[in-house]
Amino acid sequence: MTDATHPIPPASNTPVPETEVLRLLRVRGSVRNYKPDPVPEEWLNAILTAGQRAPTSSNIQAYSIVVFRNPAVKARLAELAGNQQHIIDCPVFFALCADLSRTAHACEIHDAQFLGHTLEKGLVASIDAALVGMSMTLAADSLGLGTVMIGGMRNSPLQVAGLLNLPRRAYVLFGLCLGWPRVPPLPKPRQPAAAVVHHEAYDPAVIPAALDEYDRELARHYARQGRETPHQSWTRTTADQLSTPRRMNLRQELKELGFDLA
Amino acid sequence: MTDATHPIPPASNTPVPETEVLRLLRVRGSVRNYKPDPVPEEWLNAILTAGQRAPTSSNIQAYSIVVFRNPAVKARLAELAGNQQHIIDCPVFFALCADLSRTAHACEIHDAQFLGHTLEKGLVASIDAALVGMSMTLAADSLGLGTVMIGGMRNSPLQVAGLLNLPRRAYVLFGLCLGWPRVPPLPKPRQPAAAVVHHEAYDPAVIPAALDEYDRELARHYARQGRETPHQSWTRTTADQLSTPRRMNLRQELKELGFDLA
Repeated sequence: MTDATHPIPPASNTPVPETEVLRLLRVRGSVRNYKPDPVPEEWLNAILTAGQRAPTSSNIQAYSIVVFRNPAVKARLAELAGNQQHIIDCPVFFALCADLSRTAHACEIHDAQFLGHTLEKGLVASIDAALVGMSMTLAADSLGLGTVMIGGMRNSPLQVAGLLNLPRRAYVLFGLCLGWPRVPPLPKPRQPAAAVVHHEAYDPAVIPAALDEYDRELARHYARQGRETPHQSWTRTTADQLSTPRRMNLRQELKELGFDLA
Repeated sequence: MTDATHPIPPASNTPVPETEVLRLLRVRGSVRNYKPDPVPEEWLNAILTAGQRAPTSSNIQAYSIVVFRNPAVKARLAELAGNQQHIIDCPVFFALCADLSRTAHACEIHDAQFLGHTLEKGLVASIDAALVGMSMTLAADSLGLGTVMIGGMRNSPLQVAGLLNLPRRAYVLFGLCLGWPRVPPLPKPRQPAAAVVHHEAYDPAVIPAALDEYDRELARHYARQGRETPHQSWTRTTADQLSTPRRMNLRQELKELGFDLA
């Protein structure tokens, strides 16, 4: 790999170096099947330290991480997430929290009015937590560990916050399972670049054909695994998802937690 | 590094391997000073492909990326972001968009009602875009490139969306500068783990002392650089930020873009 501290811009025809990050992202996938083996304490700390190095808007660091190894608490979180067995099976579970409580503390000690009840600050805190979670994911991947992000933590924000003893102005954005994969994850094909990447301006005209191509690619992917479900098409699965009301209580419950996206 | 496809759980006293990801995160920092050299096309594509491999909630892929190299468009975006010179100087600028338009298209072709006007779906799309942006950041870091995320894209969501020709149900979550750093970034100390990481439950009692320690550490960091500003304390800077109204039009402008966090 190149030396990040003294990069030399390459000639335009220089082949792309095969870096660990590029390789890990190419082969990664969510892991829902874990060995019972523990994660050594120092390895866990290395992942947490790596996560803390993620970029953060104006150094606000508006996130927190709660680490769980207690089986009873993990079992309760698994239940609140809609009975997700991998939260029980993984040796370590993280709650990635958007957390404006430390910024409120800063206002309090400097006698300033806290004006963080806005969509902007709610997004800043949520983005911070997401960037940390992604950094921890890649740090874990680099150590041979596996992860899966758990949006089910948003099913019951109030109950989850109560279980975690969260302060006001914080909520769990998502969970993250960590452990040793029983089997290597199978990367799922993503939408063609044409559907996702645009140059200089967004071109909506390319979307229908690109999604049609993706529906066929994903069907082939599932067929290769012997999975012939009614859900093999991305557009069909997504239409079902988007037409089903879900987590309609989220805004209200976050407001009750003092996380008011006014 | 370990072989991610066949990981063997290590003994509890096994030292943490020094992986590229751990190293990159330890030394990384935002880069605001770029050489004019271009980024080779294949290198740019490798970063985009890596970004597309980020995890995505239920494979929804509710994000898009617009890539800019046109100096005139970058100059206009720099202006809209509050005159950020690095957007002009960097050879490539990305707009990371939360984008529910493809999910709406899926509903349309399957004759399903689009119910994506919720905080939940808005967060899902925003998290997706953030995870992609972080993956691109680490991919770029691994190639010796530098980046900085630009929240200023949320200053004027309507104008930015117009400039990018975004479809309805999409907005720019943040921008990302990419290029060759003129000088290596200087990593900024983060809050002590005690302020951010909790075990089994959140312990608010530790926060005041941990933030006090951080205020002193950050002051020493700035002093070492010869920067003695009134803003060397995290709590002071943050109190100033959180008591200043900012981007108060965000919710309303997103709603006008069809991105209604109802």
